[in-house]
Amino acid sequence: MHSPDELRALVEERLDALELWRDLHGQAQSVRYSLEVGGKRIRPVICLATAEAAGAEPDAALPAACALELIHTFSLVHDDLPALDADEERRGHPSTWKQFGEAVGILAGDALHAEAFRLAASYPTTEISRELAEATLGMIGGQWLDITGGGDEVTLHRLKTGRLFAASVGLALWVADVAASEQGPWRAFGEELGLLFQIVDDILDGDGYVLTHGADEARGLADEAADRARAELGEVAADTSVLREIVDGLAVRTA
Amino acid sequence: MHSPDELRALVEERLDALELWRDLHGQAQSVRYSLEVGGKRIRPVICLATAEAAGAEPDAALPAACALELIHTFSLVHDDLPALDADEERRGHPSTWKQFGEAVGILAGDALHAEAFRLAASYPTTEISRELAEATLGMIGGQWLDITGGGDEVTLHRLKTGRLFAASVGLALWVADVAASEQGPWRAFGEELGLLFQIVDDILDGDGYVLTHGADEARGLADEAADRARAELGEVAADTSVLREIVDGLAVRTA
Repeated sequence: MHSPDELRALVEERLDALELWRDLHGQAQSVRYSLEVGGKRIRPVICLATAEAAGAEPDAALPAACALELIHTFSLVHDDLPALDADEERRGHPSTWKQFGEAVGILAGDALHAEAFRLAASYPTTEISRELAEATLGMIGGQWLDITGGGDEVTLHRLKTGRLFAASVGLALWVADVAASEQGPWRAFGEELGLLFQIVDDILDGDGYVLTHGADEARGLADEAADRARAELGEVAADTSVLREIVDGLAVRTA
Repeated sequence: MHSPDELRALVEERLDALELWRDLHGQAQSVRYSLEVGGKRIRPVICLATAEAAGAEPDAALPAACALELIHTFSLVHDDLPALDADEERRGHPSTWKQFGEAVGILAGDALHAEAFRLAASYPTTEISRELAEATLGMIGGQWLDITGGGDEVTLHRLKTGRLFAASVGLALWVADVAASEQGPWRAFGEELGLLFQIVDDILDGDGYVLTHGADEARGLADEAADRARAELGEVAADTSVLREIVDGLAVRTA
């Protein structure tokens, strides 16, 4: 089994070597820039760790893992646009639109989006494309709830953050050929993982769950989500030690 | 065989009945609006006519045909944004961003994009998703050339307009299970069709090919593309009468 850090290194290596579609021409530059600004690569690491726990080689899950990171990056690139969050910086660098202009920034998100589905279509089964599309639509629905102020907090986060976390587990299950009838506890684990990530994110940023529940109660909710995630892993007949390590890391992360 | 008008009616009916993914929530409204503003549905009609000529039922090609129209619509919705063409109107109605605001307009394009890949993933073969992704990336590369002023005219149009026309034929070939070894003349036909559409578009708008070649020469180039398209159809052992009708219609269209 590979450690989370080893899996992260595999993701970085594959993202660096990603062959973007030739017809993108100069648009490829902004796509690479958006990917290179980095991040923790949490979603692809979860995907690889799940695939390995479920019996697949991490290599087999790398295209799916990268597709998830591309969708996540596309959402950040569009979220940063002046019409949405108007963020001029992302992880200490100019955001994509700030670096390349707004028009190229919009197209960069579109290109990341389409490249993700090109990666997903490299598998023999369409289940991976289908689940990625559904998760992307859920994420967009969550963004809509966020900018329009509709919906309750749980629904908003389950969609905006949660769908892509759940798909990080789900895509790995298809890669590892886990029968649909046996996916239940894995998928429940993925849902808890997304919730855990979101609550801890809010604790670190002092918003969301902290504003509605207070800091102490938010911490309690995060711990409960982590416990439920561990309990779901207990239902799986596989070596899930690396996934447990990821849960533990997400629960105590400080950045 | 169905006439182009009958095929167009099938497309309109399916688009009207399209079940958008439930998690889109209120974002679905802007997606529907963007699709209902209409258009000639040329790409999906070409897809259905090609599928039928190649031996498939139009019904079987409808998801692919709608996916093409959704990708085309997503590109229009993003093209209309203030940072790109800043168009406040589309076909006599407020453009999507003008109607719903810029943030929802960006998300509407994103949602159309993801819905297209959800439709593509409804087929058992991933070839359809793969070709749609490649065509979308080519289209985005063409948009980049357009806004940055790079590249020659032929490359720009082959990408920005041509890739989706070519894919309208290509997706139908996968739906109709045409072996890759027999796709040659069909695909050459699709390339000519895209070129024909673009040149006639420029003649109608008085730009592009008209500016670089003059009106008479542009007309000549359009007629040559139409002739080559008909010649490619002659290489196909199938009833391509409806596709010929489409070529004739594109060559003489006035809107």
